[in-house]
Amino acid sequence: MDPDDVVEMLNELFAVCIPIIFKYDGTVDKYVGDSILAVFGSPEPDKRQWENAVRASLEMQQAIRVQQEVWQKRKLPVYRIGIGIHTGAVLHGFIGAPERMEFTVIGDAVNRATRFCDGAEGGEVIISPEVFARVANSVEAIPKIIRTKHPESEPDMAAYIVKAWNAIDTSPLPAVSG
Amino acid sequence: MDPDDVVEMLNELFAVCIPIIFKYDGTVDKYVGDSILAVFGSPEPDKRQWENAVRASLEMQQAIRVQQEVWQKRKLPVYRIGIGIHTGAVLHGFIGAPERMEFTVIGDAVNRATRFCDGAEGGEVIISPEVFARVANSVEAIPKIIRTKHPESEPDMAAYIVKAWNAIDTSPLPAVSG
Repeated sequence: MDPDDVVEMLNELFAVCIPIIFKYDGTVDKYVGDSILAVFGSPEPDKRQWENAVRASLEMQQAIRVQQEVWQKRKLPVYRIGIGIHTGAVLHGFIGAPERMEFTVIGDAVNRATRFCDGAEGGEVIISPEVFARVANSVEAIPKIIRTKHPESEPDMAAYIVKAWNAIDTSPLPAVSG
Repeated sequence: MDPDDVVEMLNELFAVCIPIIFKYDGTVDKYVGDSILAVFGSPEPDKRQWENAVRASLEMQQAIRVQQEVWQKRKLPVYRIGIGIHTGAVLHGFIGAPERMEFTVIGDAVNRATRFCDGAEGGEVIISPEVFARVANSVEAIPKIIRTKHPESEPDMAAYIVKAWNAIDTSPLPAVSG
């Protein structure tokens, strides 16, 4: 592909994903190469951050499948993304110098999230056990072991592939009079 | 350290580094955790991009050594950074969606630069062979092999530790009349 075509296709991909991240109250921390670092629950706390992250991810994969048909008509290569979700304590704040400040998150949980992303195949939404513990009642998920390429220094990681969001509406029914 | 202290110290570190990057016509592409991705020769071409990157790096290490004394007086931990420099073709442009655009660089050369950074010890400025080829006449450097942790999938990398900038001014002398 021509470099300009790569940027164009990447921007079309991002144009599909970003509005969905925002719809679920996520923020885009940064782009790292062809990846998006999205954050849920920062800077504003969000009690539904885990649900929002998982549902946004499933919706992005669905939207990319639709976009795929557009790309195929233009004879562009198949582009599938893997999504990994992790949760944990992070530092968030403005980092940098007056000449260049960025609001960003820092911490081991961020680095670990990257490993779940790396472990996600194209089309998959992978969540860490810590995320699974928060959404277990609402997702259809199957276990997955992310095999490390470097077993001598990094252990394999337990994870889950999320297949669907199965939330049952448990809000109280309205009282019916009469 | 208290999380707020981490952010404060990081911002003091960046306040030392960023003006030096700008002084040498570099740009700050992004912060990734406690790292800075700086770019020389983009978006504006710069014939001296290699020289500028190396000299900025040496000056940053020197400035951090001075800053170290300030931190020591405040009983803060010693903080030393490793700097890695690589050069190669990259895509540069605006990436993202209308809701969030960033000017950034993408490509294998960017990923490879990260590996030279990872191979740099605290206080070191490491350059790749491709950078060395551009500045060999102007630097005092010693060879270094960056040992990979994962020899089965990534080979060791040849590199150079830059000790000093030794440029001899070879510009023509002004004609002297009389």
